[in-house]
Amino acid sequence: MASDDSIQLAHGGGGQLTAELIRDVILPALGGQRAEGLTDAAVLAGDGPMAFTTDSYIVQPLEFPGGDIGKLAVCGTINDLAVSGARPVALSLSLVLQEGLQIALLERVLASAGRAARDAGVEIVTGDTKVLPRAALDGMVINTSGVGAMLPGASLGFDRIEPGDAVVLSGPLGEHGLAVMSCREGLAFATELRSDCASLHELTAALIGELGEAVRFMRDPTRGGLAAVVVEIGQSCGCDVEIDEAALPGNATARAAADMLGLDVLTVANEGKLVAFVAAAAADRAAALLRPFDVAAAAAVIGRVGQRSDSPLVEMVTSAGGRRIVQMPYGEELPRIC
Amino acid sequence: MASDDSIQLAHGGGGQLTAELIRDVILPALGGQRAEGLTDAAVLAGDGPMAFTTDSYIVQPLEFPGGDIGKLAVCGTINDLAVSGARPVALSLSLVLQEGLQIALLERVLASAGRAARDAGVEIVTGDTKVLPRAALDGMVINTSGVGAMLPGASLGFDRIEPGDAVVLSGPLGEHGLAVMSCREGLAFATELRSDCASLHELTAALIGELGEAVRFMRDPTRGGLAAVVVEIGQSCGCDVEIDEAALPGNATARAAADMLGLDVLTVANEGKLVAFVAAAAADRAAALLRPFDVAAAAAVIGRVGQRSDSPLVEMVTSAGGRRIVQMPYGEELPRIC
Repeated sequence: MASDDSIQLAHGGGGQLTAELIRDVILPALGGQRAEGLTDAAVLAGDGPMAFTTDSYIVQPLEFPGGDIGKLAVCGTINDLAVSGARPVALSLSLVLQEGLQIALLERVLASAGRAARDAGVEIVTGDTKVLPRAALDGMVINTSGVGAMLPGASLGFDRIEPGDAVVLSGPLGEHGLAVMSCREGLAFATELRSDCASLHELTAALIGELGEAVRFMRDPTRGGLAAVVVEIGQSCGCDVEIDEAALPGNATARAAADMLGLDVLTVANEGKLVAFVAAAAADRAAALLRPFDVAAAAAVIGRVGQRSDSPLVEMVTSAGGRRIVQMPYGEELPRIC
Repeated sequence: MASDDSIQLAHGGGGQLTAELIRDVILPALGGQRAEGLTDAAVLAGDGPMAFTTDSYIVQPLEFPGGDIGKLAVCGTINDLAVSGARPVALSLSLVLQEGLQIALLERVLASAGRAARDAGVEIVTGDTKVLPRAALDGMVINTSGVGAMLPGASLGFDRIEPGDAVVLSGPLGEHGLAVMSCREGLAFATELRSDCASLHELTAALIGELGEAVRFMRDPTRGGLAAVVVEIGQSCGCDVEIDEAALPGNATARAAADMLGLDVLTVANEGKLVAFVAAAAADRAAALLRPFDVAAAAAVIGRVGQRSDSPLVEMVTSAGGRRIVQMPYGEELPRIC
């Protein structure tokens, strides 16, 4: 199979061509993982509580500054495990491909997925490949599911958040969504803006390892951005939350892009940022633990949990000293962003 | 949200509308599962070796005689765990929906998925929902991944198959693929043909529980049919395999449909059939253990493993007494079948 070939419907038939695609393209591109579309299931050691998660990725374009759908699919699911307090152990990778997709593109995306998994010390252990007719799908969908081992000392939950707790953010907002959108719109600053797509499991392990139960809750603010995550957390724990605009780590290019596109960076997707709710006494230490990581060099304490309330509000104290209510975005500002 | 509404792009945005879709449609339709698109990951007890598997489902039409994409997605992943020697424990369910999809249809499909999971005693524990623009996807894709607990006594592998072992099949071939295809083509016998879509974990547990290590290998013959599975097994264990056509459980309607469509039932997809390779001495007992299950009432010993060979062949002894070579299908005879 030559790399200038393209995917045919028959590649999804479960016969000889499927086996060849897996053997000649998928396994070599993933690179040394034990991903075998050829076994029905992989066997993992299970000793202790496990986290289990799933996500399907539909981003368009498939390749963008700072990443591609393969890296996104691996990092995204690693992060879902990480913020749940687990050490990522194994991933599945399921492809739904458009008939006619260039095999060279598929190889690049899978190589990127394999690299992201190896970098994180996670194995891709099982997979699946389907093909849809040209008219029935644009591009590809990748689903990754993941299994992780719960970290000793992790005790996370909405119910562990208390008035006075601090909100820590690992870096500037909106880089993923704005990089993808700028790339899609052909905006000039597309060359400068890069997706923040990255695995966060080392950050979360450092927080839990050092701070233990002082870490109350963690989340990666993807679709819907920081706004969706903090509003949901506030409603779920029944407390007001206050965010300091002046404390938000800044990225001038991202902010300019957001202004130009008429978007609020609080609602734009991130793929390599961590929000942690921690005990007030541990707040500065949490930010300091994060900063040695390249992806969290600008980590900062950005807010605090307010009083318990029957109708909890998230408010932002603006840089100008005013206050505005932060709302959960209604729908989708940026389709096919992740 | 009314059932005559349809899916909007904004339902996939991760904001308020996504939360409403999950709360008002997805969770009630799944019915009492703890599936929360709202948590990033579910926590499972892990005590002992676990099986982990994934599959994406793209069948068209979404509803067909004997099942729908929801039931298929649950049973299919349960079966991948079952044939690996595991007791299915938990599933993830990830939806990729076409903008404009009728919510009433989504509700039916999810109710069916929830029923299949409850019937099997398996929980749907985590999920995800994305929406693609109308032009970018036809219908929906469902990915289910699954985690199972390896059964004590299961010792399955290609390397456990030996010359002389018997091949046991749980029932007639081709019912799923032919039901979907007949439905799609509007053929008259569509009313009689039903997909065999069913969960097989009780069958596999019965075999392993009673026969232990005499069960060498199991597989559910989905895409590519019995032909793909037996050829792959023969090649992987390095032995010839012989199938007796006269011993194959029969379904006259399926056979007539296959003839009319010009298809070989050996290569047509099944979604509720089990192929087990067992020690010769346990063959009749294996078939007898399967027959009490409704879905395996016609279980039979259909063949045997021949000699070791450098280029293993699967041959069928035809009802007329001849022999023909069974080949792995090259590509896809029936697109969007599962």
